[in-house]
Amino acid sequence: MLLSKLVCERTKEAPQDARITSHILLSRAGFIKQVAAGIYSLTPPAQRMSQKIQNIIREEMNAIDGQEVLFPVVMPREMWEESGRYTSIGQEMVRFKDRTGHDMLLGMTHEEAAVHMARHIVSSYNQLPCMIYQIQTKFRDEARSRGGLIRVREFTMKDAYSFHVSQEDLDKYYQRAYEAYYRIFKRIGLKNFTDFKSDTGMMGGSVAHEFMLVTPAGEDTLVFCDGCDYRANMEVAECKREELPRVEETLELVDTGSAATIEEVCALLKTQAKRSVKAVVYAVRGDASKIVVAFVRGDLEVNEAKLKKAVKMDVVPYDGGVTEEIACGNIGPVGLSDKIIKVFDLSLKGATGMVTGANKPQYHYKGFDTARDLPGVEFTDIAKVAAGDVCPVCGGRLRLENGIEIGNIFQLGTKYTAAMNMTVHAEDGSSFNPIMGCYGIGVGRAIASVAEESNDEKGLILPVTVAPWQVYLCVLRPDKEEVRAAADKIYADMERAGIEVLLDDRDCAAGIKFADADLMGMPIRVVVSPRTLEAEEAEVKLRRGGEAERVKISRLIGHIKDTISRLTEEINGSL
Amino acid sequence: MLLSKLVCERTKEAPQDARITSHILLSRAGFIKQVAAGIYSLTPPAQRMSQKIQNIIREEMNAIDGQEVLFPVVMPREMWEESGRYTSIGQEMVRFKDRTGHDMLLGMTHEEAAVHMARHIVSSYNQLPCMIYQIQTKFRDEARSRGGLIRVREFTMKDAYSFHVSQEDLDKYYQRAYEAYYRIFKRIGLKNFTDFKSDTGMMGGSVAHEFMLVTPAGEDTLVFCDGCDYRANMEVAECKREELPRVEETLELVDTGSAATIEEVCALLKTQAKRSVKAVVYAVRGDASKIVVAFVRGDLEVNEAKLKKAVKMDVVPYDGGVTEEIACGNIGPVGLSDKIIKVFDLSLKGATGMVTGANKPQYHYKGFDTARDLPGVEFTDIAKVAAGDVCPVCGGRLRLENGIEIGNIFQLGTKYTAAMNMTVHAEDGSSFNPIMGCYGIGVGRAIASVAEESNDEKGLILPVTVAPWQVYLCVLRPDKEEVRAAADKIYADMERAGIEVLLDDRDCAAGIKFADADLMGMPIRVVVSPRTLEAEEAEVKLRRGGEAERVKISRLIGHIKDTISRLTEEINGSL
Repeated sequence: MLLSKLVCERTKEAPQDARITSHILLSRAGFIKQVAAGIYSLTPPAQRMSQKIQNIIREEMNAIDGQEVLFPVVMPREMWEESGRYTSIGQEMVRFKDRTGHDMLLGMTHEEAAVHMARHIVSSYNQLPCMIYQIQTKFRDEARSRGGLIRVREFTMKDAYSFHVSQEDLDKYYQRAYEAYYRIFKRIGLKNFTDFKSDTGMMGGSVAHEFMLVTPAGEDTLVFCDGCDYRANMEVAECKREELPRVEETLELVDTGSAATIEEVCALLKTQAKRSVKAVVYAVRGDASKIVVAFVRGDLEVNEAKLKKAVKMDVVPYDGGVTEEIACGNIGPVGLSDKIIKVFDLSLKGATGMVTGANKPQYHYKGFDTARDLPGVEFTDIAKVAAGDVCPVCGGRLRLENGIEIGNIFQLGTKYTAAMNMTVHAEDGSSFNPIMGCYGIGVGRAIASVAEESNDEKGLILPVTVAPWQVYLCVLRPDKEEVRAAADKIYADMERAGIEVLLDDRDCAAGIKFADADLMGMPIRVVVSPRTLEAEEAEVKLRRGGEAERVKISRLIGHIKDTISRLTEEINGSL
Repeated sequence: MLLSKLVCERTKEAPQDARITSHILLSRAGFIKQVAAGIYSLTPPAQRMSQKIQNIIREEMNAIDGQEVLFPVVMPREMWEESGRYTSIGQEMVRFKDRTGHDMLLGMTHEEAAVHMARHIVSSYNQLPCMIYQIQTKFRDEARSRGGLIRVREFTMKDAYSFHVSQEDLDKYYQRAYEAYYRIFKRIGLKNFTDFKSDTGMMGGSVAHEFMLVTPAGEDTLVFCDGCDYRANMEVAECKREELPRVEETLELVDTGSAATIEEVCALLKTQAKRSVKAVVYAVRGDASKIVVAFVRGDLEVNEAKLKKAVKMDVVPYDGGVTEEIACGNIGPVGLSDKIIKVFDLSLKGATGMVTGANKPQYHYKGFDTARDLPGVEFTDIAKVAAGDVCPVCGGRLRLENGIEIGNIFQLGTKYTAAMNMTVHAEDGSSFNPIMGCYGIGVGRAIASVAEESNDEKGLILPVTVAPWQVYLCVLRPDKEEVRAAADKIYADMERAGIEVLLDDRDCAAGIKFADADLMGMPIRVVVSPRTLEAEEAEVKLRRGGEAERVKISRLIGHIKDTISRLTEEINGSL
């Protein structure tokens, strides 16, 4: 490809809203072009990168017996009514009426379409296990798209769905998919990534893992133990809580006047926040009259993901009008209306000498003893882990990092096959709903993740396995006929040898060319200039750094091929 | 791939609404599965076929310097306001509001997105010509989707957009694209196809060609001359009309009583239909009060495409209430309200002795002479060509056939670059709007076209260049261990040799296997059975017919590779 003709414009400035490195660099290198909030066009370099990533994914999916299919982007309401998700999924799913008034939607995931395809075709146990996957456009109407390709509304995704006779068979297949995911992320050149057990959220099911690139730009919080292998997404991370020394106090109503925050009340009563009970009020989504109050120790925060799991409902921070039950302020567990759903964190189990709200203005209790004053109550882990908390496995200290989710795998159980009535004949003649797994990777986010991890102050440093071109061939002084001729010959020889090369044939200053080469990030830069040609040489330099080498033009092709092999081997070697 | 695990179910019955061969066979072979009206999932064989077609398209687009990009499926209203098409395109474009209330749409073509991408990147004449293309999902809310993959609502399409400094440069590139299209359709195995100059419709611009597969299943009517190379889509086809002998009659009002149709009136007045004037009433779309009356000779039909072009408005057959102007019935050119737009076909030029409506109940005129009674009127070609009409070029006879549109190419002019303000610096320092071309091929329709053309009563006969697998390997009696082992070895050897093979490993009757092999249409069938193995042989047969051959297993791989090369050469050889 000639750079002079490439539909891709490099710029000094990034878009004003670009905050994170990948967004800045992919924009500045001209790889992406925004069309609307969270909606991008990919220019040729990004599309080439996307296809290389897709091919790696395809190879690994085929290697675990995946069969590629294509599901529609637009689906009818009826199919999603069958699973119950037409109503359970919120505004992030786009719904519209077609010209005949029929309710349609844009797919943001394809469990329904997968079961729809498989449910008559796969009718016997001996067709199982099987896995179908697609690489296709999805649309998710994110409220807060951000970060360039990191969190978009329209994206290309590989989504895979497997069907099994038994949990045991799913477990076996799930492990193969898990390993395939490691290979995929390694092969596209990601380095600092790992997997986490995760919450299954709206997908249903039980076991799930998400694969995370560890990077400050991530919007997920990850919990690691410095002492052992324990790691978890904040949503499900646990820790060991230190038990506070037992104190014997009687429950006593105290006037706390205008003291409102935990800090103010504890200061007034001369106690620590961890000797208080924090009450956080939530409403059930879609039913603002259903109130949930989460109680945690005063020094902790509520983990909403855990809370939702505990109450098995989707809850949102309460912001409705004041209802009778919580009109009083100073909410506390003693005497709170029975109409309210109450959830108590594990940190309150056996707690004594606590300050709590008294459910009336200006008053708190002190000396609260959970076992004594709320006998029979159950405790659930609904609190957030914090940096420095104690590892639940080894007792070491926990550390927090940020991460970008680069993929996820779920065990779905029979949620969809049962709801959509997919039955398969068993060996004994009975019939059953197959157990499903599903497996997703966002291709655009993979591009952004690579960019986020592999760069320096000058631009992208793309892994050779996914770079749009392997070689950036710079011609200095292409206005000189013999230089241009030599460069054209090298370019033609490279193409013939199967080397992917971008020829910077522009008649401009060397500095501009080197800056663009650095910004665009092809792994190998080759420079041909009057000076190198005098010695019948070219200059070869790796984008990631190291010394420039002079290589005789007669052995340049072999040298570049060896370099590509070496760089590829460095990425794939450990697989 | 093992057939026992393939997610693809063959059936005896086609869907009830399947009328045409490709719909019936692609359904029965299990290649497609309907999700909603005009919306299909592709199972693994169809997806493999789709990818092979995409790769052929990609190679040919790259060969004419195309750069692959990706535009979004979902686009914002603003982009389409710029071109004016947000309002000019009707219900076939899906519009919806996103969660913030923003107007969005689903792309059914991407001229706007192409200009949006190119307009800042391509800023200098020396970046031209350039062509960008994508292969991506489109949605067009067709009122009457039908014919399986022939006319759908959601489809995968290759759409390409080129930019040029001059009409001359576009002409040159357009010719390259035209030739690339021939190569593409040949390479995917289509045989009876040709190109037609066509109307540019909603795309704007002037010159356009459509590529048509000639087949009875087509919904387009094509006009061919048996005597010369003249050919045209019915929408624009012309012919030479025989002139009727001049007769001298006076204009006379006659009572025709209840005679209503042209046949009845002509019978009553003892004349031929071609001595009458037919009046067909249309309304302008979106403005039912604007009436257009098309006058053609009584033996001819109105060509709506020509009529629309003549009046430069979109018209639909009039079905509104009776308005004052056309309340009378028996509509004729003499005395018809001035409020009505009247269009006269060329066949009426110089016509004499004609019967026409008199614009009042029970009365017609006879002896109408267009030149005498309607002086100064203009005549335009708005009539349909019929079989047996006279070729406008050589005077031979015209013949009608049906066709499926398999691709189209358009010269767009500066319609989009001017409307969307894309300017480029010229060599002389001035700036200009580049001239565009656009080039489309539907991938799903290509699959259906191949199926429509290549089949027999037993099923599909797929060209080797696009067949999901090259070989259908039948094992008879796989329950016998030594047979299964031999088949497994052949299967493994084939895969190692790069032969794409579907192994029918099912333990079922030979008849079922042969029927499925015929239905699915892989080009080469190989049978391994106890009997062939006794002689250390396999049986090889081409799906398209001819004798089965016995081939020694020791040279089977070589034989199959040679056969694949030969079949490929037969398709590609003439390129």
